[in-house]
Amino acid sequence: MNEQLAIHQVVSQWFRQVRPQILAGRKQGLEIENKTSRLDLVTNIDKETEQFYRQQIRQHFPNSKILGEEGAKEDINSAEELFWVIDPIDGTMNFVKQGRSFVSMLAIYHKQQPVLGYIYDVVADQLYWGGPGLGVYCDEEKLSEPENISLKEGLLGVNGPMIMSNYRNLQTVVKQSAGARIYGSAGIEFIHVLRGQCVGYLSHLRPWDYAAGSILAESLNLVVKTIDGNILDVVSSEDVLVATKRAFSEITALMAAK
Amino acid sequence: MNEQLAIHQVVSQWFRQVRPQILAGRKQGLEIENKTSRLDLVTNIDKETEQFYRQQIRQHFPNSKILGEEGAKEDINSAEELFWVIDPIDGTMNFVKQGRSFVSMLAIYHKQQPVLGYIYDVVADQLYWGGPGLGVYCDEEKLSEPENISLKEGLLGVNGPMIMSNYRNLQTVVKQSAGARIYGSAGIEFIHVLRGQCVGYLSHLRPWDYAAGSILAESLNLVVKTIDGNILDVVSSEDVLVATKRAFSEITALMAAK
Repeated sequence: MNEQLAIHQVVSQWFRQVRPQILAGRKQGLEIENKTSRLDLVTNIDKETEQFYRQQIRQHFPNSKILGEEGAKEDINSAEELFWVIDPIDGTMNFVKQGRSFVSMLAIYHKQQPVLGYIYDVVADQLYWGGPGLGVYCDEEKLSEPENISLKEGLLGVNGPMIMSNYRNLQTVVKQSAGARIYGSAGIEFIHVLRGQCVGYLSHLRPWDYAAGSILAESLNLVVKTIDGNILDVVSSEDVLVATKRAFSEITALMAAK
Repeated sequence: MNEQLAIHQVVSQWFRQVRPQILAGRKQGLEIENKTSRLDLVTNIDKETEQFYRQQIRQHFPNSKILGEEGAKEDINSAEELFWVIDPIDGTMNFVKQGRSFVSMLAIYHKQQPVLGYIYDVVADQLYWGGPGLGVYCDEEKLSEPENISLKEGLLGVNGPMIMSNYRNLQTVVKQSAGARIYGSAGIEFIHVLRGQCVGYLSHLRPWDYAAGSILAESLNLVVKTIDGNILDVVSSEDVLVATKRAFSEITALMAAK
């Protein structure tokens, strides 16, 4: 626990340190490139923000290994001490098109075990952070565990392409919920589930999309696994579902491979 | 113009006046009823807020006719002078489940012509207002006209059931955009389009859902009509599309009845 809070003392400073360069960088005009498709963007600010975190990690925690969305991808299983997962800008399309509803995320593991997760809502200047034994905070405010509501009682965050293709029966799931929401950033969707504003969130995610959120969700007694009920290994891209216990069971039953 | 600003002087006070009772009402516990379905909610706060507006209108503008979501529904064509459209809480599901992403809206007409529109983001405490000849403001900040971008350059706000049923080819439209968003409140979606954060928004809307937003959108040179290109009459429920000029043409072409 002391170790965990000692790390937090250092890391929690970084987000507000990097914020001005993210906001100013967007105002100055972004250099935007496509990665895998025209809908998968990376900007100079994604890269610069990741570099900022990498420098901080190297300086303060030199024996770390790092998996970064925009840089070298080391493997959690090769890490002997600290392992870091960086998503410098999550929701890059929102960042580019809206200038809001994007976050910056870090996840920290020690000998493969989760230590701390961070989701920083850059525009709102709110830091969601926590880890095993700590619970979850928004800045100084301790979040309470979301009520264990059922699917029909809550809004469900989803992924646009999955709802359009009715991926594994997803439309039936949505129809049993109180409605679908699409916010376009895994971090923003995780925040909604952490706050009890959505009953769950389902999407195909890469490790940097789900690492921080899953540490926080588990610290609030939410369930976060693949839709087949497998544990997230921080290595694979997966169909990830985070939800209340009740909704998790209901959704996975509806989406069970036939 | 003087008449318009004289009305605005009075009306602009109402939103911050009613805000505390909306926020306190939710904290105290809502009385929630279903209207047409389990997904179409009304609360005591919807009703009380509408009553608040009706009292203010009667007091300050006694010769008005009123169309309210939760009350008497007079017809714009019967109004000899001022006509008001009230949506006391738009995004009631968000209001109930999330405590955010809902708005309160008013639209004002004089002899059937638009005069002023108001979308009040209650939690953010931001009032979007404007009308013909005025442009659109967020509080004191004058919004610039959104760039006339094409569909592929922007995010598209949509309605969940319509995207699931691929209503009139909507999935093809979404695939040509930069992605779909679902926020669950017409007013919140209109704000995104007014701010250029979405290239357009499409949904099946009732007059109180679209009246204020369409007055504001037209004041920023956006197009807002039915998806068949018909003018909104503030009487009928319609498939409403608000978008940049370019995106409006592209979307209506893709959705043209075959």
